[in-house]
Amino acid sequence: MELPKKMLPDNITIIEVGPRDGFQNVRDFIDTEDKVRIIELMQEAGVRAMEVTSFVHPKAIPQMADAREVAERIRKRFPDLRMIALVPNERGARNAFDCGVREVSYVISASEEHNLANVKRTITESLEELRRIRERVPDLAVRLDIATAFGCPYAGEVPKEKVFLLIEEAVRAGIREIVLCDTIGIAHPLQVADLVEKVQERYPQETFTMHLHNTRGQGLANIFAAMQRGIASFETSVGGLGGCPFAPGAAGNVATEDLVNLLDYMKIGHGIRQEEFLKAVACVKERVHANLTGNMLRACRYEHI
Amino acid sequence: MELPKKMLPDNITIIEVGPRDGFQNVRDFIDTEDKVRIIELMQEAGVRAMEVTSFVHPKAIPQMADAREVAERIRKRFPDLRMIALVPNERGARNAFDCGVREVSYVISASEEHNLANVKRTITESLEELRRIRERVPDLAVRLDIATAFGCPYAGEVPKEKVFLLIEEAVRAGIREIVLCDTIGIAHPLQVADLVEKVQERYPQETFTMHLHNTRGQGLANIFAAMQRGIASFETSVGGLGGCPFAPGAAGNVATEDLVNLLDYMKIGHGIRQEEFLKAVACVKERVHANLTGNMLRACRYEHI
Repeated sequence: MELPKKMLPDNITIIEVGPRDGFQNVRDFIDTEDKVRIIELMQEAGVRAMEVTSFVHPKAIPQMADAREVAERIRKRFPDLRMIALVPNERGARNAFDCGVREVSYVISASEEHNLANVKRTITESLEELRRIRERVPDLAVRLDIATAFGCPYAGEVPKEKVFLLIEEAVRAGIREIVLCDTIGIAHPLQVADLVEKVQERYPQETFTMHLHNTRGQGLANIFAAMQRGIASFETSVGGLGGCPFAPGAAGNVATEDLVNLLDYMKIGHGIRQEEFLKAVACVKERVHANLTGNMLRACRYEHI
Repeated sequence: MELPKKMLPDNITIIEVGPRDGFQNVRDFIDTEDKVRIIELMQEAGVRAMEVTSFVHPKAIPQMADAREVAERIRKRFPDLRMIALVPNERGARNAFDCGVREVSYVISASEEHNLANVKRTITESLEELRRIRERVPDLAVRLDIATAFGCPYAGEVPKEKVFLLIEEAVRAGIREIVLCDTIGIAHPLQVADLVEKVQERYPQETFTMHLHNTRGQGLANIFAAMQRGIASFETSVGGLGGCPFAPGAAGNVATEDLVNLLDYMKIGHGIRQEEFLKAVACVKERVHANLTGNMLRACRYEHI
């Protein structure tokens, strides 16, 4: 097994996005206590990087109305956790910073149509807002999430040039991490391999993270392809929670526990203890009214080896 | 996208195993009419190779009690279909041959424990039976399915040497196709890449087909890894039906429609027309009382592009 192993990274960073991308798609309000409890269980299982909430207007996403409380409690309880929050604009960025958040995700879609549906702005307007955030909250690290980087539910194919353009603007704005998002799970392994090869070649100083929805069951195959091209950072979601309110049919993310299993099998390091993480999955199953698409909770009921 | 594409085969053979591996795990008897109808729909969608039934004793698997009728009707209706049946012994092989079947699968597990549980024989006894079939029904082409080739629910790890031994015996018995089965969905991409590389090196004249259960969601990643090592033949199951009565927790196979989607996206030929194939999946959903684990039926409800 020596030969193929050499192609892959020795260690992977898993960024848990369930409390943000997952919870925001759950209709029934999840108690703040339950949110914090689930985050706590994941932290105890070894998760070291997490998107914990989203500083959006509560009218837009009522589920995230407790962003401030979640962020403050988590920061106090787990000062060493790499805590990330999503922000849609300068106001969200300021609020996040005030709560002690020091790293945020900001989303722009590579497709104009999806950007308009998702954040009610043109891409140009989104980029202006991004520059404002960088100027006015300069101590806040910003990661750029490029949504629909592999295809758009409205526009169809998304030319790679649109992705390059956003990366170019992000680099100019001093951003060091780019998240390539397959918002609707339309990417395939060759496409992933091709895009990550090209972006790494052009922007060798940037960190590229993949956020791959599992709508068509291709999530782990896409992750495997990305790892073969040296990508070592992935966003996944507890239980496979997730979707996009403005991307019809976007089923869940790759489940964190499924990626953990894959990496454990391949002896690639990641820092999460599966047995403990599954307690968090069980807690989500119990307290969150959502369909869990991950495989490991079911598989483990029969685990013999 | 030129570079990575070159690593992969241009065309893939998909062997549909739903009517055998899928149906045999369904408790409620499926009417012979319905079985034939589903096979018919798949054939119309372009499926060219199919395991249509299993010539086992009806006491062992009552669902397959209509093996003779299914085989005879399918042979008459679709003389050009590559029709395969599973047989557990010489008697099954004779019965299959009498119904016009000219190609059968015969299963031996790489792990002694699983072979005993699955077919109530030692591996040595299974090999004797295989040789008897070859001698006494010489005009019947036999493929060897090596079950638990990547791990066993009873024995745990399965040394590669046990797989090589079975291949060696199969080659001696004049068998030209070996099916490497991940019966419980425990394989990972590096393990798949490693094993298929070694077996192809040792047995360059044999055709190797993969049969990969999707218990832990790694099926398509494993298929992608196998294709990167030149494997061009895969067994999948309509709707993701499948399992193994003697392998607890063996969830479904990779769904044929999920593999079709992956190959369509990667522009790899396979001959199946997805839109028509999904009619077969819908028919299974309607007429077969089983949990479908494939992703495409759900994804297509929202399909925009």
